[in-house]
Amino acid sequence: MRKIHVIGIGAGDPDQLTLQAVKALRSTDVFFILDKGEVKSDLVQLRRDILDAHIPEGSYRLVEARDPDRDRAAGGAAYSPAVGDWRSARADIYQRLIAEELGEDESGAFLVWGDPALYDSTLGILEEILERGAVAFTYEVVPGISSVSALVARHRTGLNRVARPVQITTGRRLAEGFPEGVDDVVVMLDAHQTFRQYADEDIDIYWGAYIGTPDEILASGPIAETAPRIERLRAEARDRKGWIMDTYLLRRHPRG
Amino acid sequence: MRKIHVIGIGAGDPDQLTLQAVKALRSTDVFFILDKGEVKSDLVQLRRDILDAHIPEGSYRLVEARDPDRDRAAGGAAYSPAVGDWRSARADIYQRLIAEELGEDESGAFLVWGDPALYDSTLGILEEILERGAVAFTYEVVPGISSVSALVARHRTGLNRVARPVQITTGRRLAEGFPEGVDDVVVMLDAHQTFRQYADEDIDIYWGAYIGTPDEILASGPIAETAPRIERLRAEARDRKGWIMDTYLLRRHPRG
Repeated sequence: MRKIHVIGIGAGDPDQLTLQAVKALRSTDVFFILDKGEVKSDLVQLRRDILDAHIPEGSYRLVEARDPDRDRAAGGAAYSPAVGDWRSARADIYQRLIAEELGEDESGAFLVWGDPALYDSTLGILEEILERGAVAFTYEVVPGISSVSALVARHRTGLNRVARPVQITTGRRLAEGFPEGVDDVVVMLDAHQTFRQYADEDIDIYWGAYIGTPDEILASGPIAETAPRIERLRAEARDRKGWIMDTYLLRRHPRG
Repeated sequence: MRKIHVIGIGAGDPDQLTLQAVKALRSTDVFFILDKGEVKSDLVQLRRDILDAHIPEGSYRLVEARDPDRDRAAGGAAYSPAVGDWRSARADIYQRLIAEELGEDESGAFLVWGDPALYDSTLGILEEILERGAVAFTYEVVPGISSVSALVARHRTGLNRVARPVQITTGRRLAEGFPEGVDDVVVMLDAHQTFRQYADEDIDIYWGAYIGTPDEILASGPIAETAPRIERLRAEARDRKGWIMDTYLLRRHPRG
């Protein structure tokens, strides 16, 4: 039976791999790498570097495929269906890779940035392929250090305050309002710096981009003071590298 | 200047340490281990096993101290002050350990289960000691695989659903009501199996105890069906081992 590892490889620092992840890499015959296009080729290179660092060359095969383009223009209510279409297109590609590139007794792996449990589609896609029933395999998940965890470690703060909850959400959701019932909110996938919407409130931001890589940038403080600095850092970094991956924690102070 | 590492050592599986954590272990002169009393001495032993597995004996010192008893009887509104007192008592102990057991140019480490960012007091305690100003040190945080991340990896599911938020909260909070605005909720520190309160709703539970250790137990399914099984498994395990650490994800299905 074919076996698939879904391996969380941490937020960017090759030392953030777990020993379990390294063992999984070493027991893998075929690595599947999906390229999102030239803009993110840095990320493909980082994955290749991780393989070079941990496994002897020649002991594995590397299969690259082009990721389907996501319809990023679709906004608002159209978001989820667009994600659904994109996921199915990606499932077609993954299914072909598993069926054609992986022998019956071989093991394949997908390397996922951060933790496969957070805002990553790989597990959903594998389930979709299994439901279709055209190719059979087992799979295991190796948890990774998420960018959320790496972010707060770099800022030397916790995600939650004592006995209180924390919510992890998206920029799109934050644009609709500050989440109910929580004062600590981690925001991912925010292309629009939605934190600026809350500059009038008594909220601290802990922001980071390219966390764990040599390009890492951190900034923190009250939103009102810190937002202009983040905007500038973000624009400069984006111009220089052509892409940006950032995450932040918002921590609201109690009223009164 | 004294240096402290706060090292996340994963949820229980020694292979869940990151390479960064192993490097931090190897650069540590003194490990501080707080014993919560005999009930949890298994956990102290697990930490010793991790040290044995990764660093040569004789290359470090191990300093053990007794954790102050937390006033677990305090409930409801009294919870946070009790935690505050306990934290100060713990800060006294940590301060003494750092001042008396660590040389001026040495590095010390606290090993934290899971991720130091989630429901752990170490970072808050170190900040409290620095504010007091009686002993100076720098500190760094090494993020770890949280029990949350390990739980969902073992269940091969994600924390969030596509484009939706997830909240991490406590059993105590869940007892006050299902959190607003989210359908995916991770519950930690729940001694009372509060999920039973929601057995009438269309919610799936993904539960796990002693995750990543040889004692690991997993159960999942609709709460109504799964709750009795979890109650039984939990009672048996608690009797056998004398303590239990468990976590779960609640996933509510859309209404209608």
